[in-house]
Amino acid sequence: MHHDEWVRQELQKLSRSLGFHYTPRDEIESRLNRVKTRMEKQGIEALLVVQKMDFYYLSGTTQEGLLFLPLEGNPFLMIKREFERAKVESPLEDVVALKSLRDVPTLIKAYWNRLPHSLGLEFDVLPVNDYLKLQEFFPGIRFADISSILRETRKIKSPFEIDLMRAAGKIGKRVYREARKILKKGMTEIEFGGLLEAVAKRHGHEGLLRVRSLNYEAYTWHVLSGPTGGIVSQSDSPMGGLGLSPAFPVGASLKAMRAHEPILVDFGTCYHGYQADETRMFSIGKLEQKFIDAYKACREIHDAVLEETRPGADCEGIFMKTLRLADKLGYKDSYLGPPGLQTRFIAHGIGLELNELPFIAKGQSYPLEKGMTFALEPKIVFPGEGSVGIENTVVVTEKGYEILTPVAQNIFQV
Amino acid sequence: MHHDEWVRQELQKLSRSLGFHYTPRDEIESRLNRVKTRMEKQGIEALLVVQKMDFYYLSGTTQEGLLFLPLEGNPFLMIKREFERAKVESPLEDVVALKSLRDVPTLIKAYWNRLPHSLGLEFDVLPVNDYLKLQEFFPGIRFADISSILRETRKIKSPFEIDLMRAAGKIGKRVYREARKILKKGMTEIEFGGLLEAVAKRHGHEGLLRVRSLNYEAYTWHVLSGPTGGIVSQSDSPMGGLGLSPAFPVGASLKAMRAHEPILVDFGTCYHGYQADETRMFSIGKLEQKFIDAYKACREIHDAVLEETRPGADCEGIFMKTLRLADKLGYKDSYLGPPGLQTRFIAHGIGLELNELPFIAKGQSYPLEKGMTFALEPKIVFPGEGSVGIENTVVVTEKGYEILTPVAQNIFQV
Repeated sequence: MHHDEWVRQELQKLSRSLGFHYTPRDEIESRLNRVKTRMEKQGIEALLVVQKMDFYYLSGTTQEGLLFLPLEGNPFLMIKREFERAKVESPLEDVVALKSLRDVPTLIKAYWNRLPHSLGLEFDVLPVNDYLKLQEFFPGIRFADISSILRETRKIKSPFEIDLMRAAGKIGKRVYREARKILKKGMTEIEFGGLLEAVAKRHGHEGLLRVRSLNYEAYTWHVLSGPTGGIVSQSDSPMGGLGLSPAFPVGASLKAMRAHEPILVDFGTCYHGYQADETRMFSIGKLEQKFIDAYKACREIHDAVLEETRPGADCEGIFMKTLRLADKLGYKDSYLGPPGLQTRFIAHGIGLELNELPFIAKGQSYPLEKGMTFALEPKIVFPGEGSVGIENTVVVTEKGYEILTPVAQNIFQV
Repeated sequence: MHHDEWVRQELQKLSRSLGFHYTPRDEIESRLNRVKTRMEKQGIEALLVVQKMDFYYLSGTTQEGLLFLPLEGNPFLMIKREFERAKVESPLEDVVALKSLRDVPTLIKAYWNRLPHSLGLEFDVLPVNDYLKLQEFFPGIRFADISSILRETRKIKSPFEIDLMRAAGKIGKRVYREARKILKKGMTEIEFGGLLEAVAKRHGHEGLLRVRSLNYEAYTWHVLSGPTGGIVSQSDSPMGGLGLSPAFPVGASLKAMRAHEPILVDFGTCYHGYQADETRMFSIGKLEQKFIDAYKACREIHDAVLEETRPGADCEGIFMKTLRLADKLGYKDSYLGPPGLQTRFIAHGIGLELNELPFIAKGQSYPLEKGMTFALEPKIVFPGEGSVGIENTVVVTEKGYEILTPVAQNIFQV
């Protein structure tokens, strides 16, 4: 059978029978309209969307290609590979084949009758070489950075998106349930992390977590025990862990887990691109009282943030309140990292990427809104000894919040 | 204990006891000198290296920061996070703390006495916004694209690097050995892939595979069975697989594996950042003769390439020869993908990234050299039915080649 024919006839059937949710047309239209409202305000005539998650958000497909989105007229997809599959995956009507970036102006002229005067690009991630090529291919055009338009639009999640995040949270719940059976004394952090990920994958976890950044690499296997929990590394996180080598100096290591030390499992899951992030504590035998107390403080801070969580609450205000609370509880120097290395956020927006808006953080003075989703993660770090923390993924609702990662919040002692 | 003190006193001990290999000083010096030779030829006074794998290659650390490498004078690292750890990981002597990209010119003046007239940047991956900021911070400077300098330097591997790739290959060997015990009828592709990855991680596989690209995402769990092996997707690969959703439409899916269908396991491993990539075939019960024959053809093409592999052999020439051989063997329309979707490479360079030089491919007319490493992967695809293939990672030696992925090459029938 020819590949195209097979894709047209069989792919929908097979993929739907295996649980694929294709993004509905009205969902895509509502997203496109929200982007257009912002384009109009900024006087941008058209966008050329390249980055995979922006592209998926606005088209429903992640096949390789670009989206041309004009303020007036129909958007269309230019697909390099694989064309027939993009037509199955995206509800957009106009899908054309693309051979090279060089052909983009010709295709725009053919499908939109002329070239735009201004064209928005994702300056925060687009490589310089692509930008220089586009300058050559579109002489005289004004390019504008539209990364903030896309990030602002994506920060409010629809019910369709929240459902997918809830499903990611359910995968996490299964992982933490099985984790108690898997954890054994003497097992290495990375073996534990690998087995947890195998459970998650079995239930549909997509393996890769995504971050909007050149160098920031997200991963699922953040299992830290005793002293490795006290190590800060390359990432903007209270604790990085030892990792497996200087090439990957974060997350689980080949260190064996011992009795009575704090074991922190910060495990992200991904379903249809949508992520849920959560952290729970484990121990083999009873945990030292110092860590139990610090964990109680994390829960207290966590609950204090949730008490404030509702539309209108100021993100920076909430963060500053947690600093005062941590201070009052006696953790000024270990809250969110060791002295000099403390991070300045307690929650990061989450959705298709792990560094979305909002940030509940210093310098982020804007209100929470209904439909925002964030991962709330108070953590306390003791260098040389270990760290504790809790993390849940939360959506802001009309009057408060809903937790999308419904795992029990006690320390799991095995 | 203070974090800095703990890192200085304990990190080396702990990490070395867990198998960390830090890049030796003479290895880094030899790499820097090779880069400088190319800089001199292109008249570039200094480089600012940002991208994580270039940065690791030239400094030995992946802590967050930048490397300033002048043609004359000492290179130095500017580290954002984590400073003390970078000093443990890198053999470079000059390591300074960096707060913001804005401070880079001041640091260069302080440590190098002046600003360069020309500065090389990685245009192929550096985001536009960072480029525009650097233009602002370095007024009047000439920026040059140095991605090809770095890619050309990295394409020849040292014995130190080849040892790490050999170690990655050994992890793969353990995975394929255990795979035969894990594979069961009715198990889903993703469950199988997840369990194989858990084995690899237990032996030190770092989980993330790396590609030099904005949108290309590499992953380890490429397990395809029967019809999913016949599906082409977003990646430049003969077969993409179904994947788990439109957000991740590649690799293993929730399809259950059945008896008698071809099960293709394309599994990459990563050790200290260095990758090995290999593919083997499995079946539950006997495979249909059609697939056995096609697999034999893949092995024949694979062996024909190895016969040509030695310094001086032309990459494009080798590729064209495989096209003629595939044609002669009766697989013109299914070699490297279905008609219209056939890829035009049979091997990709591999090392810290999966898309390094050389490519044994159409349009790549240059000679193989001693120390080049590539993943050789002849594959044959039948849409709607499945695919077969073999893949090994190979290093070019003085007189021929060495296979770094020493797994038996028969079909593993369970």
